[in-house]
Amino acid sequence: MKIGVFDSGFGGLTVLRALLERVPAEYVYLGDTARLPYGAKSRETVARYAVSSAKFLVEEQGAEFLVIACNTASALALDAIRAAVAVPVLGVVETGANAAEASSTTRDVLVIATAATVESHAYASACSERKLRAIEKACPLLVPLVEEGWIESPVTAEVLRIYMAELLEQARVAGLNADTMVLGCTHYPLLRAQIEKAAPSGLRVIDSAEVTAEQVAGMLQVSGRGSEAKFFATDSVKKFRALGSRFLGREIGVVELVDLETAGSR
Amino acid sequence: MKIGVFDSGFGGLTVLRALLERVPAEYVYLGDTARLPYGAKSRETVARYAVSSAKFLVEEQGAEFLVIACNTASALALDAIRAAVAVPVLGVVETGANAAEASSTTRDVLVIATAATVESHAYASACSERKLRAIEKACPLLVPLVEEGWIESPVTAEVLRIYMAELLEQARVAGLNADTMVLGCTHYPLLRAQIEKAAPSGLRVIDSAEVTAEQVAGMLQVSGRGSEAKFFATDSVKKFRALGSRFLGREIGVVELVDLETAGSR
Repeated sequence: MKIGVFDSGFGGLTVLRALLERVPAEYVYLGDTARLPYGAKSRETVARYAVSSAKFLVEEQGAEFLVIACNTASALALDAIRAAVAVPVLGVVETGANAAEASSTTRDVLVIATAATVESHAYASACSERKLRAIEKACPLLVPLVEEGWIESPVTAEVLRIYMAELLEQARVAGLNADTMVLGCTHYPLLRAQIEKAAPSGLRVIDSAEVTAEQVAGMLQVSGRGSEAKFFATDSVKKFRALGSRFLGREIGVVELVDLETAGSR
Repeated sequence: MKIGVFDSGFGGLTVLRALLERVPAEYVYLGDTARLPYGAKSRETVARYAVSSAKFLVEEQGAEFLVIACNTASALALDAIRAAVAVPVLGVVETGANAAEASSTTRDVLVIATAATVESHAYASACSERKLRAIEKACPLLVPLVEEGWIESPVTAEVLRIYMAELLEQARVAGLNADTMVLGCTHYPLLRAQIEKAAPSGLRVIDSAEVTAEQVAGMLQVSGRGSEAKFFATDSVKKFRALGSRFLGREIGVVELVDLETAGSR
């Protein structure tokens, strides 16, 4: 089994890391770093980029299963990707919503994510399909804080305190009694301990990387550790290796540069 | 006179705002928002994007003078842009370095900018050509703080305090006695008051938007207010209008969407 994992950048490596711990397969990871971040772009643009990336993984790298480890692409382009490739496709929005459904007894959940993911209301829709009420909150400073490496910084604790207070106030005004919070961005697992500290006790935090790996293992009915992964990036191989290691939790060896823009058919 | 102003996004609107106050001309502004931010991308990618944007302003919009109001593009692609279009081109890195040269009596300057601008060492090179020593510091949290609108927040004050302490320590270790600091990112003029508060007294802060407008006025030997501007963006016209108004300091009317990617000749 060869599994393709796609993200606009490095964040999806937290999902690959979780997959490598739980699902025995070969992996091909593509970070579309030349065109990141998807978060600020329109649905049309994100769909075009994500489809070209998915086709690369399936048609050129032979992936038999695709994990869209990018919340923005999962939110805006999952249908377009499913229409474009002939293999099963699982996105982190649905895996997060599935896990929230399993976790919540009050049927009320909170979601934190990037601005684009929130604007798409993809989590609210996915939750609504599962008869959950959801409040979504954009937290645009968390990705740069993670990339700056300020995980333990008091600045990060203060930013999380502010975001959490705003989110709980939103929930209070809407009359929600939430018992579950979904981390709707693949960068956020690196802040999981800090987020759990900032959250009120009794709020269960759903790490989308972890629950995605669990659901892939469930769908494929396998368990065990993954074998090696191959890495592709559309820009700055050097930066991918340097930053990516933090997300994967170990050194990244060879990263191949791939150009998804000049080939007309993509 | 028609002046083209180019940036990867909204930040360059601080430069347009300064131009509108000082240089009588018609303006055409292009924000390459579909492909922002340039900051994380390689020299080759930035040059390709910037050249297609410059050609649009000159060949399709009739600009007779180009201001590259994007530090990353000025740092990585100015030569490529000059080779591609037949009009005068001025970039914010050189205008910032010119102003630092005029300001500094100690001949030592500090520069704060995005990671990509710092990694390019464009300011250090431009300063070195002017017989100035420069220390450059990447401040990746400032752009998202501005975009979040947290201008007056204690979080922003604390982030600036940390960055400033790190920068002054770098300067101390290198033996510099700086009297001038260049804001090497077009988002930073919105934080100018906060930055001046965080900086030690006696450090003159150079606002690249302001000094660029002054130098354009000097080159064209004109002064007075500009007439109306036309706006183009490559993505999310709605977001451009909403966020852009903050940078321009007034409402933005019509924004036209332009596609720089599908036309083969670009």
